[in-house]
Amino acid sequence: MNIVLMEPEIPYNTGNIGRSCVLTNTTLHLIKPLGFSLDEKQIKRSGLDYWHLVDLKVWDSYEELRAAYPESSFYFATTKTKQRYSDVTYKENDFIVFGPESRGIPETILNENKENCITIPMIKMGRSLNLSNSAAIILYESLRQVDFNFGEDE
Amino acid sequence: MNIVLMEPEIPYNTGNIGRSCVLTNTTLHLIKPLGFSLDEKQIKRSGLDYWHLVDLKVWDSYEELRAAYPESSFYFATTKTKQRYSDVTYKENDFIVFGPESRGIPETILNENKENCITIPMIKMGRSLNLSNSAAIILYESLRQVDFNFGEDE
Repeated sequence: MNIVLMEPEIPYNTGNIGRSCVLTNTTLHLIKPLGFSLDEKQIKRSGLDYWHLVDLKVWDSYEELRAAYPESSFYFATTKTKQRYSDVTYKENDFIVFGPESRGIPETILNENKENCITIPMIKMGRSLNLSNSAAIILYESLRQVDFNFGEDE
Repeated sequence: MNIVLMEPEIPYNTGNIGRSCVLTNTTLHLIKPLGFSLDEKQIKRSGLDYWHLVDLKVWDSYEELRAAYPESSFYFATTKTKQRYSDVTYKENDFIVFGPESRGIPETILNENKENCITIPMIKMGRSLNLSNSAAIILYESLRQVDFNFGEDE
């Protein structure tokens, strides 16, 4: 699978998501600008002990990423849709996109991809789950659907 | 649903799990001893901004908790079983138990509950997912199975 974080702000979340990616053979894509530095000192200070194992790709823009994978399916996690994350059918190597912690994916991108917007159901209180938890929930639903095939040599 | 954390060590994880519980009408049970204080100053320092909304129960021991819910089904998250968390059938108000971050659920408890041990599949590298991510993944699988019925007034 592929997880995409657009302009992530909180290094601890990105680190936790990286850990989930390592443990599931998932590629982590980060779209700049990042709210933190990827230099080694900062990574260590954030306790991101899995970071050197992450299959990481860093992109200058969303458009650059999309252009690199023209044939792939992209899903967009947002609170602004009614389509549940568990109601779509994932394939191996699909992309699941998350917006920045403070503001989510830009409306223009959501509008261009309405049928591929997905949401995690929760009670109505106007708040949302932690980013790394959201990523873990959707990533593991997609993996469940492909029978937890990590592409690992047995 | 019910999430049980046995002797949790890292307040940030417990706080994040509390947030997931609030957003899903899930009760959070903590079994003492805790690796942190629940006094208001410590909670605020850990950035647990949802904490006052958590439906929280604190227990002196695992035995005390079990005795209080003699009719309920309990599931035990561990790396030491082959039964996938997605292969069991959850009911509303089941209990999902997680051990301390550094050592997991004690073997004696796992052995007493072998058929209810569950695991999150991942690649073989001898490490495991972050506790709050693990809790989110299993909690949401259980909620998916009960059609995301949060017991909320519509």
